Amino acid sequence: MSTSTKPPRRTAFFLSDRTGITIEMLGHSLLRQFENLPFTEITLPYLDTAEKAAAVVTQINDLAIADSVRPLVFSTFVNPVIRSVFDSANALHLDCFNIFVAPLEVELGVRSSHTVGLSHRLGDMVDYRQRIEAIRYTLEHDDGVSQRNWQQADITLVGVSRSGKTPTCLYLALKYGIRAANCPLTPDDFSRVELPAAIKGLRAKLFGFTIDPARLHQIRSERMPDSDYASLENCRYEVREAEALMRQEGILFLDATNKSIEELATAVLHHAKLTRKIY
Amino acid sequence: MSTSTKPPRRTAFFLSDRTGITIEMLGHSLLRQFENLPFTEITLPYLDTAEKAAAVVTQINDLAIADSVRPLVFSTFVNPVIRSVFDSANALHLDCFNIFVAPLEVELGVRSSHTVGLSHRLGDMVDYRQRIEAIRYTLEHDDGVSQRNWQQADITLVGVSRSGKTPTCLYLALKYGIRAANCPLTPDDFSRVELPAAIKGLRAKLFGFTIDPARLHQIRSERMPDSDYASLENCRYEVREAEALMRQEGILFLDATNKSIEELATAVLHHAKLTRKIY
Repeated sequence: MSTSTKPPRRTAFFLSDRTGITIEMLGHSLLRQFENLPFTEITLPYLDTAEKAAAVVTQINDLAIADSVRPLVFSTFVNPVIRSVFDSANALHLDCFNIFVAPLEVELGVRSSHTVGLSHRLGDMVDYRQRIEAIRYTLEHDDGVSQRNWQQADITLVGVSRSGKTPTCLYLALKYGIRAANCPLTPDDFSRVELPAAIKGLRAKLFGFTIDPARLHQIRSERMPDSDYASLENCRYEVREAEALMRQEGILFLDATNKSIEELATAVLHHAKLTRKIY
Repeated sequence: MSTSTKPPRRTAFFLSDRTGITIEMLGHSLLRQFENLPFTEITLPYLDTAEKAAAVVTQINDLAIADSVRPLVFSTFVNPVIRSVFDSANALHLDCFNIFVAPLEVELGVRSSHTVGLSHRLGDMVDYRQRIEAIRYTLEHDDGVSQRNWQQADITLVGVSRSGKTPTCLYLALKYGIRAANCPLTPDDFSRVELPAAIKGLRAKLFGFTIDPARLHQIRSERMPDSDYASLENCRYEVREAEALMRQEGILFLDATNKSIEELATAVLHHAKLTRKIY
């Protein structure tokens, strides 16, 4: 271990014989618990032969010398033969399947499939079509563009322009196969003091976002500096009127300021009690 | 344990004091290794007080009786006080932080932050803006719509219409903050035997998808049955010409047939050697 006061930069590997997306998310989130330490994160997917695995072991061992500290290796190898290649690596190796699958096998009283590429069974193709269809629907109903089929939405997000509706809808569609439409509330609606025609009568499926006017001003100014649209005065007006309209219409809304897309999507799922299919 | 030949349906909980997205992905992927067993999956995010946690323990214990088998609990509690509430639950409890953070603390020689809500540090706000900007760019450059700023794309996917370009681009933008444009190859391009004007000269940043003509026919027929566009003959023609054009232009391409969005996105990252920022 280094004796300097500054901790050495460590290399962290996220390894998988499949896409590596799950282990990358898990490993990244674990490393963030050590926020004062510097890490270099490397994701290597599709390590599906012993030869590819052996080449990565060499890379790991070389970095252990170059970094003066052994790397961290997070992995999910379904194939135990590939996994065992890493036993000889000079690293702290934490494998999800080793750690989780063994106790699950005991609890469930059966062996796991240890099968790569389970993702293409028949049921999954149906799921896949539903998911693609949800993405298509969400794109067609972004920003209130389409005038058709709003009643087919699983959820419709409303709120002032640039309050985070579009990325949240895309996330809900991509990750959970939810048909998530969104419709902006604009000064037109405020002067009429009613909801846009497209979404009237959908109240049970509407969910609102609001945002701090100063933050909205900042966001809008990045794209349209010095416009009336982006002015702090207009942002204050729009947010005030949008909140009043949502209250009048009995629409539940949350404050989207400083929330990540994941946090907004999770909050919508939670409050709107939507069924999430996990992909 | 049930004595019937049909295994009992088990309830699996994915619990977190944050969004629960990581543990939901991990738990779901682990359960898929036991493909012949039936599970009911329940994600409960934002369990950030001992009271909420205690209510879930009651729910777990009730389901252990109703299911005649104890539930599985997968969790990532950053807060150890909340985590310990589940010690009394009648369940197999696998907590990621318990399992992973302890060996990491030993290896790294420091305590972890045990902090909820690390997601809003200053650096993250910069990342967040880049990510939102990537999503905006990707939406503007979906399906070859915009005529502007193609050179700003990190990657541009090409291929026949309905070969999976749009969902892959959205995934790359949302998950990795990559500006992913896409441009269809159409019969117009085939008769001119050259790339669409918008993307000419971008060769180093082009990546292609191809697809089995029979599968393309099936996909197109769902939206436009009995059209020339969807006919098997036309699909064969388009795929053949698109592959010839990509070969002529030296564009690397992969077969997108039966691949999930995650697999396509990972393959693009991998082959195009794109830097992925993890969100």
